[in-house]
Amino acid sequence: MASKKIESALISVFHKEGLEPIVAELKRLGVTIYSTGGTQGFIESLGAEVTAVEDLTSYPSILDGRVKTLHPKVFGGILARREESHLSQLGQYEIPAIDLVIVDLYPFEQTVAATDDEAAIIEKIDIGGISLIRAAAKNYKDVAVVPSQSAYAALLRLLKDQDGVTTLADRQALAREAFMVSSHYDTAIFNYFNREEEPGAAFKHSIGQATALRYGENPHQAGVFYGNLEDMFDIIGGKALSYNNLVDIDAAVGLVREFKGDAPTFAILKHTNSCGVATRPTILEAWKAALAADNVSAFGGILMANATIDRATAEEIDNIFYEVLIAPGFDEDALELLTQKKKRILLRIKDYAAQPRSFKSLLNGVIEQDTDLKIEAAGELTVVTQKQPTPQEVADLLFANKCAKHLKSNTIVLARGQQLLSMGCGQTSRVDALKQAIEKAKAFGFSLEGAVMASDAFFPFPDCVEIADTAGITAVIQPGGSIRDKDSVAYCDAHGMAMVTTGIRHFKH
Amino acid sequence: MASKKIESALISVFHKEGLEPIVAELKRLGVTIYSTGGTQGFIESLGAEVTAVEDLTSYPSILDGRVKTLHPKVFGGILARREESHLSQLGQYEIPAIDLVIVDLYPFEQTVAATDDEAAIIEKIDIGGISLIRAAAKNYKDVAVVPSQSAYAALLRLLKDQDGVTTLADRQALAREAFMVSSHYDTAIFNYFNREEEPGAAFKHSIGQATALRYGENPHQAGVFYGNLEDMFDIIGGKALSYNNLVDIDAAVGLVREFKGDAPTFAILKHTNSCGVATRPTILEAWKAALAADNVSAFGGILMANATIDRATAEEIDNIFYEVLIAPGFDEDALELLTQKKKRILLRIKDYAAQPRSFKSLLNGVIEQDTDLKIEAAGELTVVTQKQPTPQEVADLLFANKCAKHLKSNTIVLARGQQLLSMGCGQTSRVDALKQAIEKAKAFGFSLEGAVMASDAFFPFPDCVEIADTAGITAVIQPGGSIRDKDSVAYCDAHGMAMVTTGIRHFKH
Repeated sequence: MASKKIESALISVFHKEGLEPIVAELKRLGVTIYSTGGTQGFIESLGAEVTAVEDLTSYPSILDGRVKTLHPKVFGGILARREESHLSQLGQYEIPAIDLVIVDLYPFEQTVAATDDEAAIIEKIDIGGISLIRAAAKNYKDVAVVPSQSAYAALLRLLKDQDGVTTLADRQALAREAFMVSSHYDTAIFNYFNREEEPGAAFKHSIGQATALRYGENPHQAGVFYGNLEDMFDIIGGKALSYNNLVDIDAAVGLVREFKGDAPTFAILKHTNSCGVATRPTILEAWKAALAADNVSAFGGILMANATIDRATAEEIDNIFYEVLIAPGFDEDALELLTQKKKRILLRIKDYAAQPRSFKSLLNGVIEQDTDLKIEAAGELTVVTQKQPTPQEVADLLFANKCAKHLKSNTIVLARGQQLLSMGCGQTSRVDALKQAIEKAKAFGFSLEGAVMASDAFFPFPDCVEIADTAGITAVIQPGGSIRDKDSVAYCDAHGMAMVTTGIRHFKH
Repeated sequence: MASKKIESALISVFHKEGLEPIVAELKRLGVTIYSTGGTQGFIESLGAEVTAVEDLTSYPSILDGRVKTLHPKVFGGILARREESHLSQLGQYEIPAIDLVIVDLYPFEQTVAATDDEAAIIEKIDIGGISLIRAAAKNYKDVAVVPSQSAYAALLRLLKDQDGVTTLADRQALAREAFMVSSHYDTAIFNYFNREEEPGAAFKHSIGQATALRYGENPHQAGVFYGNLEDMFDIIGGKALSYNNLVDIDAAVGLVREFKGDAPTFAILKHTNSCGVATRPTILEAWKAALAADNVSAFGGILMANATIDRATAEEIDNIFYEVLIAPGFDEDALELLTQKKKRILLRIKDYAAQPRSFKSLLNGVIEQDTDLKIEAAGELTVVTQKQPTPQEVADLLFANKCAKHLKSNTIVLARGQQLLSMGCGQTSRVDALKQAIEKAKAFGFSLEGAVMASDAFFPFPDCVEIADTAGITAVIQPGGSIRDKDSVAYCDAHGMAMVTTGIRHFKH
């Protein structure tokens, strides 16, 4: 009952590739074919008989093809329910029933990507084709729809293995695909029309490419990634990326992006937070200096370098257990060693580009914002104390500020000589973050004499600079903007510390 | 040049409300009106002349209205560019140009919400109407489209204030609205067809309702919330919700959801992490016990109760500076006091429901997972030590486990007597989280004798139970699953501690 034999098909496609075996099968099965313009010529060249849609409608294609198929003689045959009252109307108006609709859409997104010619883009807004697809999908109880080349394989199976007999489930799956295509298409058009509006007029996202993850943040949660990671990374080896790997990799790329083009830099992250970061003349030295900050947390960490990994560095890294190693390049002898551990994930990053807007679901909706792509340069610092920071301190303040930007708020970073000495992060009070950082620096054997301190947000009270001073810290970077800034500045002035403000807060949650 | 006078209109709407003043204006301006079926009758009842689309096409509405307007005589008049080659074809085929298209769509989403009758739902997939809307939007250079009642106000302005003359910008804005409507519509249909599929086949979201926020996570980032918060909350008063408020409120609702139906419970959060949580016989006692855990972090915090706020509690709360207070109810005399501070945000929560799936943008795509809605009950605990926890310890272990689930990983919670004593969170090593929690408990004057410890993930080494034991802790809850679990259990057995495992990890990042 729910199975239907395909006896007639309407074919109208922009891309002709892949059609040949389908036409051969339709011919074998004796299916009546209706078609238009270029598609008609192509099918006839394959030796199959075709009825022109114009002959069916007795109406020509008009307005440069803008109106070809929008006719009751076409849509009636697609939309009629296969039941007495509808079939008798088809008979009365001499409308042939159409059982299969193969249509693809004008390449709108590709045209937008390829040109700024508005007229050319607008011409690629498909009207007739998408209407045929949607009509066939609506009537999936009786009609099969093939809305893009990506459904050709499924269609061939139905034609070859099932001799053109489709089940309700077959047709329903195709209808689902059809609305996936149509909603994606109109989302792209909306985004084109919305291109000059303030972002944020509506939340519209459509991503077809899905990769199921083993699970989500925890094993009892199903997880999926939408997108194409291979545009960003060569995935060299290792086990499949997990949800938490992706979250950590995102944090690592965000942090190391700040050091793109700098001297060799290594970062070690755990639970999205960096526990070691260092810039050195060689990548081997950078690795050793990053690891020194907290070689306990580094266990099972995400490692990322801004420079090619050589054999000597690979040998050192290979001594510890890590989850993921990311770099812009690997020397061959380094890879030879690293790929011996089969589970370790190795990624060669090709593209550091960030999405300009970031969003997440929250409460009963979605929150979106500009991605925080601002980072302060030396020329943007305002010295607010009598004491000027030394050039070395300025370099360390900028380094510490980059690290602080990418740690969960509240955070305090302590650094010296282009090395993160310690940090406190994710704290509910700023002074706790500082205390935690001081404790960690002690635990890993660092003196804080001559170190600098970075804070992601302003100091509400002067307690942080007091504690930092006592620990030996000589220079501080912070956004400023507290009504009690002057108390912190006064303390620094009284104790010979330097402080610079950036004017830019970097909360991250 | 880009301005156009509306001389003809096609109107075909499902909902007739709001049409009357528009028809009156069209009549005043002498616009030729084409229409179909019910809309035609309605317009004629308003005393305006109408040409039936059937008379234009010389074709009846067939298949129970499934095919009414899908005809070249209708679409040609909408899609023709107003230039010589196209206009001459309109003349040749006696097709009238149509300058304005007013169409709304069958109420698909409302029908899905109202019924399970598949045939009724499928019938509400609009084919002809959406084709008219899309065709008019494509040809916005020459045609104005009104794709839903929400654009009626804009149309009335064009008819009244501009006497039916539209600028290119007017028509472009309407076209943008049209593709917003069409993409939203097909996203809803896709989601219907996809309802029985595994979630995660494609990422499809469309939310039209946007609220611009003052800024994003930081002042240099623009931010926006999509959705309707008033479905969840009565917003009683205070300044506009900020991006960070929303992030914190989301965290607060997630936490307090675990205590829904429990005795009065108060939670205090900062930067999405709770720094105070307590359950007590009265909400006043719960507030005092929550605040006691860390009255420093509470400054500027997000406060949430699971029970009605009475006057006595309001008086206590009013003593501290807070950003947001959320509760399921407020006594009138409590509100009278609380609303005196004009900037404090007061929310009455009406609906605790969580979205079943959560997502966020990341790298070059989006990551999605089942929301972590699992929380362990007493019957789901496995005692893995010789020592059984006492009933009081079990109650505290469950309490601490709820708190730990909602703190950023790695986290350790210390609790006793249904009160969070302290926590460490957002740490790159688990032992650091514990040390931090112990330090904080000390700083706020708590002994840890007889307290319990919860961990969001397993202990990789026995160091945590050793340190906890030394601090006075007598019972531990954790997921279990480390290859060294037995080391931790052995330590507990040797030192008279109780440990239960849940089998459920609760990482949160």
